Amino acid sequence: MGYRGVPGHEFVGVVQQSSDTGVIGRRVVGEINAACGRCDFCRSGLGRHCSERTVLGILGRDGAFADYLTLPDRNLIPLPDSIPDDVAVLVEPVAAACEIFEQVRLGRDEKILVLGDGRLGAIVASVLRANSYAPVVGGHHPEKLAILAQLGLKVDAEDGLQPGFDCVIDCTGRPAGFTRAIELVRPRGRIILKSTAAANLAINLAPVVVNEITVTGSRCGRFGPAIELLEAGKIDLQQLISRRYPLDDAIAAFDDARDPLNFKILLQAS
Amino acid sequence: MGYRGVPGHEFVGVVQQSSDTGVIGRRVVGEINAACGRCDFCRSGLGRHCSERTVLGILGRDGAFADYLTLPDRNLIPLPDSIPDDVAVLVEPVAAACEIFEQVRLGRDEKILVLGDGRLGAIVASVLRANSYAPVVGGHHPEKLAILAQLGLKVDAEDGLQPGFDCVIDCTGRPAGFTRAIELVRPRGRIILKSTAAANLAINLAPVVVNEITVTGSRCGRFGPAIELLEAGKIDLQQLISRRYPLDDAIAAFDDARDPLNFKILLQAS
Repeated sequence: MGYRGVPGHEFVGVVQQSSDTGVIGRRVVGEINAACGRCDFCRSGLGRHCSERTVLGILGRDGAFADYLTLPDRNLIPLPDSIPDDVAVLVEPVAAACEIFEQVRLGRDEKILVLGDGRLGAIVASVLRANSYAPVVGGHHPEKLAILAQLGLKVDAEDGLQPGFDCVIDCTGRPAGFTRAIELVRPRGRIILKSTAAANLAINLAPVVVNEITVTGSRCGRFGPAIELLEAGKIDLQQLISRRYPLDDAIAAFDDARDPLNFKILLQAS
Repeated sequence: MGYRGVPGHEFVGVVQQSSDTGVIGRRVVGEINAACGRCDFCRSGLGRHCSERTVLGILGRDGAFADYLTLPDRNLIPLPDSIPDDVAVLVEPVAAACEIFEQVRLGRDEKILVLGDGRLGAIVASVLRANSYAPVVGGHHPEKLAILAQLGLKVDAEDGLQPGFDCVIDCTGRPAGFTRAIELVRPRGRIILKSTAAANLAINLAPVVVNEITVTGSRCGRFGPAIELLEAGKIDLQQLISRRYPLDDAIAAFDDARDPLNFKILLQAS
């Protein structure tokens, strides 16, 4: 997006100011797309595709790595007490995982591969599992795969994966993830792209045509279904929080987040 | 496919030899995928994705630019007299156009763009029109667009096209076609790739994810629906035949086929 500004779009916070006095003091999460509310996309419930939108920490709107942020009142969602802060901060990526169900119809008996053993792969696979699917997570890091196995997920070393998956969900965050997904999906199968890392990648798209593969890009989702999943205790994400840093140590936190063995690093404002 | 051998996969011919005496002497077209008949794909009617298949003039099987070719009996389809040779030779690309309906569900009110004013674009748009869709063909060649307009198709200069199409079907045969399709499709829209030209193209896939676009590769189709369309006289393809050459002048024919103003050049065995 060529964004310049305060980054950060996954947050939980307490409302300090609002024209809606009922929400002041409430602990909230917030939908990150601030849309016009009037266009065709907005009126059909797809404000996250509104052409006039700003996006928290991504497009025209300062983000969450700060003491304060602003969002329209209608974007805020008060949290039930049963969801702790460490989990609430993951509502946004859980919603992004739930988005898959808004876009494609997956069969419960499909062979689903989640490619990537990082934070997003873990969340997508956990959300699938909570919805009675049985995905395999393929990754490169035995230590992370071991943690994901503790979460009840089926895991496998990526290098040994055999082709023939009905659906491959690329959560690698690496440009090569898409190429690997093309190798592993069966003819007439489906690839879901959950990361924007594949920018300007030289790709041989011929197998997509020859094997009649369908590729669906997938981004943000609605927060409601995500909060319901978390409130119902259907997914356990607490183990994904690797460490916490005060906001003043954000640079050190970013360095730590680059360590591939960490799932999720949190920043905490004072 | 790294194919070496006799090319050519669009043909009409007369059966000279067969263990099925009933078909000898009949004028036929032939499904180009010769499949094993036993695997899961074959048993579900998708022999064109059989991993053991040969493909006429494309993969492990000499093709149609020859005096004789061979195909399994079950691939042959006798033609009704009402379909002349010039049209019959287009059954294969018409079937490839019909394949779109086997893969995706298009709404009759969708804004559909067929990108490319060549042979494939003309055929895909004609097949869509025969099925009560109203596609626009976008192209670079005013002379070809004029001919397509005579076929009853809506046409437009590609350079002036505005984004916002619900569905863009890339029939350009050029690597840049996919990039252009990404520009022209609306968020949550659909791109159908009908050509394998986009090999090793450096593509920015981020908009596919951000705009949640679905890309479907589409290749060969069943011949039955194509022959029905042609027999019913619902599409008029005779005007797409630009010229005929005897097989002995194939090299000159290929030179002529490179002229972007020609739609289709035929080779005729003696």
